Amino acid sequence: MAKGVFYHAGCPVCVEAEQVFLEYLDPTKVAVEVVHLGTDRSRIEEAEQAGVKSVPAIVINQVVYHINYGASLDDVKGS
Amino acid sequence: MAKGVFYHAGCPVCVEAEQVFLEYLDPTKVAVEVVHLGTDRSRIEEAEQAGVKSVPAIVINQVVYHINYGASLDDVKGS
Repeated sequence: MAKGVFYHAGCPVCVEAEQVFLEYLDPTKVAVEVVHLGTDRSRIEEAEQAGVKSVPAIVINQVVYHINYGASLDDVKGS
Repeated sequence: MAKGVFYHAGCPVCVEAEQVFLEYLDPTKVAVEVVHLGTDRSRIEEAEQAGVKSVPAIVINQVVYHINYGASLDDVKGS
């Protein structure tokens, strides 16, 4: 079972991407944790370490997939 | 069953994204067609109409999700 972390910051682009990915990813193959970086700021550094540069992004098995472009991680840090 | 179309142009970013998405999407919920715009150039206009601006991108139920940034559609057209 792969581990996925979906990082977002609550922006409209993020919410739309989240709904699709959580709905269409196969729960028997990947377990997805959703992290709202706007409210759980303690996870920002972890996202940065994982290579996340903008949100929404999903990290699966240490590989980062940025989805569309909601906000840069610097914006999330500054907000 | 939703319909997904994964557009790419064979670039390394594309191949990595393709492998993950095809592996982790739930085949009981979404049927994904893979389109290589570098070889199947007749589908470029269709991708443009769907709102694709860069590849790789996956379109699910008419909503476009650009994944990371491999190449712009203009580059694909010009190549």
